Amino acid sequence: MTSDAHRHWQEIYAKQKTRKPKFPTSSFEPEPLYTSGDLPQWQEERDLGYPGEFPFVRGIQPSQYRGRLWTMRQYAGFGSAEETNARFRFLLEQGQTGLSTAFDLPTQMGYDSTDPIALGEVGKVGVAIDTLADMELLLKDLPLGKVSTSMTINATASILLLMYQIVAERQGVAKEDISGTIQNDVLKEYEARGTFIFPPGPSLRITADIIAYCADALPSWNTISISGYHIREAGSTAVQELAFTFSNAIAYVEAVRERGLDIDAFAPRLSFFFNAHNHFFEEVAKFRAARRIWANLMRYRFGAKDPKSWMLRFHTQTAGSTLQAQQIDVNVVRIAYQAMAAVLGGTQSLHTNSRDEALSLPSNASALLALRTQQVLAEETGAADVIDPLGGSYYIEALTDRLETEALALMKRVEEQGGVLKSIETGFIQREIHHAAYQAQQAIEHGEQKIVGVNCYQIEETTHPPVFHVNEAVARGQSDRLARIKAERSSVDVERHLDTLEQAARGTDNLMPHLKRAIESYASIGEICTRLRKVYGAYRDPGYL
Amino acid sequence: MTSDAHRHWQEIYAKQKTRKPKFPTSSFEPEPLYTSGDLPQWQEERDLGYPGEFPFVRGIQPSQYRGRLWTMRQYAGFGSAEETNARFRFLLEQGQTGLSTAFDLPTQMGYDSTDPIALGEVGKVGVAIDTLADMELLLKDLPLGKVSTSMTINATASILLLMYQIVAERQGVAKEDISGTIQNDVLKEYEARGTFIFPPGPSLRITADIIAYCADALPSWNTISISGYHIREAGSTAVQELAFTFSNAIAYVEAVRERGLDIDAFAPRLSFFFNAHNHFFEEVAKFRAARRIWANLMRYRFGAKDPKSWMLRFHTQTAGSTLQAQQIDVNVVRIAYQAMAAVLGGTQSLHTNSRDEALSLPSNASALLALRTQQVLAEETGAADVIDPLGGSYYIEALTDRLETEALALMKRVEEQGGVLKSIETGFIQREIHHAAYQAQQAIEHGEQKIVGVNCYQIEETTHPPVFHVNEAVARGQSDRLARIKAERSSVDVERHLDTLEQAARGTDNLMPHLKRAIESYASIGEICTRLRKVYGAYRDPGYL
Repeated sequence: MTSDAHRHWQEIYAKQKTRKPKFPTSSFEPEPLYTSGDLPQWQEERDLGYPGEFPFVRGIQPSQYRGRLWTMRQYAGFGSAEETNARFRFLLEQGQTGLSTAFDLPTQMGYDSTDPIALGEVGKVGVAIDTLADMELLLKDLPLGKVSTSMTINATASILLLMYQIVAERQGVAKEDISGTIQNDVLKEYEARGTFIFPPGPSLRITADIIAYCADALPSWNTISISGYHIREAGSTAVQELAFTFSNAIAYVEAVRERGLDIDAFAPRLSFFFNAHNHFFEEVAKFRAARRIWANLMRYRFGAKDPKSWMLRFHTQTAGSTLQAQQIDVNVVRIAYQAMAAVLGGTQSLHTNSRDEALSLPSNASALLALRTQQVLAEETGAADVIDPLGGSYYIEALTDRLETEALALMKRVEEQGGVLKSIETGFIQREIHHAAYQAQQAIEHGEQKIVGVNCYQIEETTHPPVFHVNEAVARGQSDRLARIKAERSSVDVERHLDTLEQAARGTDNLMPHLKRAIESYASIGEICTRLRKVYGAYRDPGYL
Repeated sequence: MTSDAHRHWQEIYAKQKTRKPKFPTSSFEPEPLYTSGDLPQWQEERDLGYPGEFPFVRGIQPSQYRGRLWTMRQYAGFGSAEETNARFRFLLEQGQTGLSTAFDLPTQMGYDSTDPIALGEVGKVGVAIDTLADMELLLKDLPLGKVSTSMTINATASILLLMYQIVAERQGVAKEDISGTIQNDVLKEYEARGTFIFPPGPSLRITADIIAYCADALPSWNTISISGYHIREAGSTAVQELAFTFSNAIAYVEAVRERGLDIDAFAPRLSFFFNAHNHFFEEVAKFRAARRIWANLMRYRFGAKDPKSWMLRFHTQTAGSTLQAQQIDVNVVRIAYQAMAAVLGGTQSLHTNSRDEALSLPSNASALLALRTQQVLAEETGAADVIDPLGGSYYIEALTDRLETEALALMKRVEEQGGVLKSIETGFIQREIHHAAYQAQQAIEHGEQKIVGVNCYQIEETTHPPVFHVNEAVARGQSDRLARIKAERSSVDVERHLDTLEQAARGTDNLMPHLKRAIESYASIGEICTRLRKVYGAYRDPGYL
């Protein structure tokens, strides 16, 4: 619509003073007003379509949240396995519908709690797991055939997944009923998050092993959660979050296809993980654009035939990096808006952060309020009652198109540089993210982007909220249990299984069955990873981050 | 769009199980999905138009919040004038941009603090004002030429407005710079809120006196804030909120026109006050529908020529009735969503409630968090950066149309019953609201409408938030000051002005100049209202509420 009336409004608008010179999203400068004139090529049937149908912009389910709400999946994990098990039971009693586990850094990096490198980190950012015995405690009396469990684990995803599988099998759960997700996205570790062990090549091989193994052994498991979340947390734009996530996804798909697996044999179990950041409309549009990008990639680039392969399924977490240590209750408001953006964008599951996360691990009260935020959104706001409620909004559809176009252009640049592995090695991706993060920080420092309580509306705070501390006894407890396990297990068995594993790692066998036997003999994470490091070497960051 | 693809989706949807049998808004049952097919007659230029232009669906300003943010106007007032003055200064220092005053019940009902009927109510739900001396303290050192002040006062609006005018004049503020709003909407008091003094007829006359007086004397003052807020708080639907508010507006406009004033001489100073309730999309659509209803009413029914007369300007407050005493921090989330709906609907000013209002008057910390909620919305979410961001959304436009159509139908029913005064006398309006409130309550009791912490997700709460109490010394302080004023003033002058006022009330003169002289002589609210009660009688509710 570029009518006389439109031009008339434009002339009047041009004479108005605005309160800021620019109104950027994370990615670009939007127009002041959107009309149908901003969607000249757009066609409702082709570009929007219907829920549950290609290209899935309106959602992957025909009835979306009318059928079933998103899974309220609060990430939790700290200290010992027993403590986290208690938090899980608390959250399930409060109405949470899925579990999500954080692991401590030693577990993520493949070290035992007793390793000198683990000092001060045991149980700190998540639960400490050394052997299968810890996993047994973590999952004690949880109904593994009924809940789905997400595990935020990457470099050691294979080990934690197998531990989970073993415990579920011992509970007598059928393999079809073992459901959950491992993050298992190593590429973004090199790009943004930093918890990698081996060089990118061997890491990609292990990821492909997991995906191939699960096709038969854990058919209901989401074998990977390809994560834009951390790319965004590292300071990227929404466009970069989309582009680098899908560039990584392409690398995984290609690695698995090289083993001869048909695309439709594994693509339906690939899942994604995105960030719900501050810019409400850009975020809603981002989720919608993501579905269209993936559907087109899978259908036309990879030739997938199964519509399940075309459907982008994703978890969302509100943006931890937007939370502030000042006036922490204000974070409740930020989280509420971010959560609504995720829901209006059609997420399959959602973690809402806790208001005190900028200061410490969340207290019980804060974790509960974060869950209550989702419950209000689901039950009281009507946001879940109509499918894709923003569909057709000129602004949202124009944003969706533009995010898609710009993300595809950036993905093309990654390909032109030789793909993701190459772009990691040259530092291209890291530099792009770093540049965006720097720009965003500058905007805050210069006051172009106001942050309540940080560069405006500050107050002197006289009281400080109670800070939740990890029990210092966790490391001792882990050390005692590991010593007891080592005394009780057959060290002959352990050594034999570790030897076989090491041999497999030197060859091309799928590592998963070898890892499983080592884990069942109660070999520790540190012991297993030591053997793998011998074969693959440890990777050092080239310093681009 | 009722294409093959649409029918295909409908067939698939019909086979899906839904988690609830119905997904109602407050007013009706929406479709599961909206497409362009739901807007068969809708025309973008005609029905949506441009911001700042008829019919103003996209907002009354050509640049909306790009030009200027909404006014963050937190309603405050409690105890004594001095205490409220201190709260006002605190809020202005924290970045609030407008003042808003609550008055206690005796002030609202025209009784002095010393009246036996005032016992236990002095300073309780707002500030206590007996004479001009209290207003002087309330406004002490506030820059009345710069802030705009809203006063929630109805039956005694004339008195409080004149007190404000006198203090501003003494500060030397030019009449064009004295800006603010009085609620002054007595009709909704009979329909929903209950703080009336005289019968509807004389009340309407005083309102018309105020509006006519201000046309010259206070040209920048919003002479009335026609309030759907309380109609909604009493349990009405969104459709009823619109319909009864505009029915009342018609009655006011007609009463003022009967004095021979041209519509464009007073219509630009009429303002409105709506509720931001839980159903996010229905609320956004309600504000947009309200602008179109008013623009058409003023332009075509009342023949207004000045575009300013067509523009619906409104204040919004989040829905106090949705706040719960259980798990009060959850209210922060409800308020955040309601506030966003108001902003996406294009409100001119906004009060966000405090989380503890279901228990007590808000504490300083809670009042601050409520303001911070607006600041996050304004500065961090991007919600204010693009004009009418939801414009074009099939769902929003269809809701906007339907709310308009149903509200107009209900307004027609009111007219068929003989108009608003008649509908109040017969109890029609009260019964309609009561019926809706009963239905809503039943839905909660039967669990069809879940309320977090009330009929689901309850917890045992072991700690209770600090409750803010009004200082019991307020009544004593008011009594002492009133005694001192009475001793100091000229009682001869007071009696003389009260006599003249009483005489004017029996005639048809505009009461305002007479009231002003009485107030300047420090006659008290109780003394003034006693004289007016002598003339008009006190109205008793016929018991429809």
